[in-house]
Amino acid sequence: MPRIHFQQQLSALKDKLLAMASLAQQSVSSALEAYLLRDEILCKFVKRTKRAINSAQRELDGMACELLAQEQPMAIDLRFIFAVIKINRDLARIGDQAMGIRRRTKDIIQEEPIQLPIDLIAMGQVADRMIRLALQALLEGDARLADHLRELDDEVDRMNHHAHDNLLRFIQEKPRYAKQAITGILVAKNLERIADHTSNIASEVIFWIRATDVRHVLTESQD
Amino acid sequence: MPRIHFQQQLSALKDKLLAMASLAQQSVSSALEAYLLRDEILCKFVKRTKRAINSAQRELDGMACELLAQEQPMAIDLRFIFAVIKINRDLARIGDQAMGIRRRTKDIIQEEPIQLPIDLIAMGQVADRMIRLALQALLEGDARLADHLRELDDEVDRMNHHAHDNLLRFIQEKPRYAKQAITGILVAKNLERIADHTSNIASEVIFWIRATDVRHVLTESQD
Repeated sequence: MPRIHFQQQLSALKDKLLAMASLAQQSVSSALEAYLLRDEILCKFVKRTKRAINSAQRELDGMACELLAQEQPMAIDLRFIFAVIKINRDLARIGDQAMGIRRRTKDIIQEEPIQLPIDLIAMGQVADRMIRLALQALLEGDARLADHLRELDDEVDRMNHHAHDNLLRFIQEKPRYAKQAITGILVAKNLERIADHTSNIASEVIFWIRATDVRHVLTESQD
Repeated sequence: MPRIHFQQQLSALKDKLLAMASLAQQSVSSALEAYLLRDEILCKFVKRTKRAINSAQRELDGMACELLAQEQPMAIDLRFIFAVIKINRDLARIGDQAMGIRRRTKDIIQEEPIQLPIDLIAMGQVADRMIRLALQALLEGDARLADHLRELDDEVDRMNHHAHDNLLRFIQEKPRYAKQAITGILVAKNLERIADHTSNIASEVIFWIRATDVRHVLTESQD
């Protein structure tokens, strides 16, 4: 019964993707905490998580490639594998952004700690919720969740603009803290990119389920 | 003769990918020129190019998915299609970064023009060369080119750090120009991400040709 075996492999692929997504989510929350607490041990943890993400990415690619090679999948399965290949890549990019936050943390770890006019915790919470929702959409095959993700992506964009403007004014008033404030701008930007990647994932889920390509319906409004 | 037909389709897929890469390259050079010249017409051109990239991305994904569905490709062809799916995504992300540069241009188009201590033209030239090299690697199936790309990626990283440090000092000395200088930092960062995506493309070419996954050999050194 090769079809049953194939379905088991598809299910294993899904599990592996969920594990990869958990790693990506963990890398973001750890990186943000490392930045907020200026914690070097958490920085190391982010780096180790990135290594785990890299190896999960390779494994997932290998599994997807093997499944495609083994037998001719049916349309819906083919679209699922196709979506997995792409979601895998977005999750790896989310890990890159977490590494970016880690890099910013290391840049300022020796600098005087100051209070910046920016709510990174709130931004991080929205980004975190977005990753969870994207996963839920994938697990439950629920394309409607993508609409909600789109709203959240807009919210993160607004938060990022707001942070940017506030920090610019702050730098003009207190140029001696320019380094810390620019780092804040860059971390907000990392979170905004994480939200974008999560939006991409939602689009892939919709592509898989509805077989329509909504990617640029979602993204063109951001221009 | 279905195999010959299949090879023709593969060749069409390659052509389409090259067209997509040209669009991505054009979007980067236009966006950088728009920023340097503060040219609103070029900003519009970047947006139009992004639309063309989006539709090329959809078409390429469709072609790749169809090829996978039609018949069971052989290992090397399967790896090629697999690489195309991923390179397609990196090229689209390069287009996103060009849109980021366009956004920064619009942010400062009304601001007083000033001379920043940053050589974006040189950075742009290296990024442009990298995209060309990645394409050449793909066209000629030349995996050795990836080593050269790795060196260029390091060069762009160094240029980005240098730009960041110079602009930070500049802001501390002349906080009234903070807006223009922060924009310079962000554009340098966009170029650095473009170089990263190009490095990813080179890794996919190597994966296709050598069937070994070098992605994280290349990227781990950047941590």
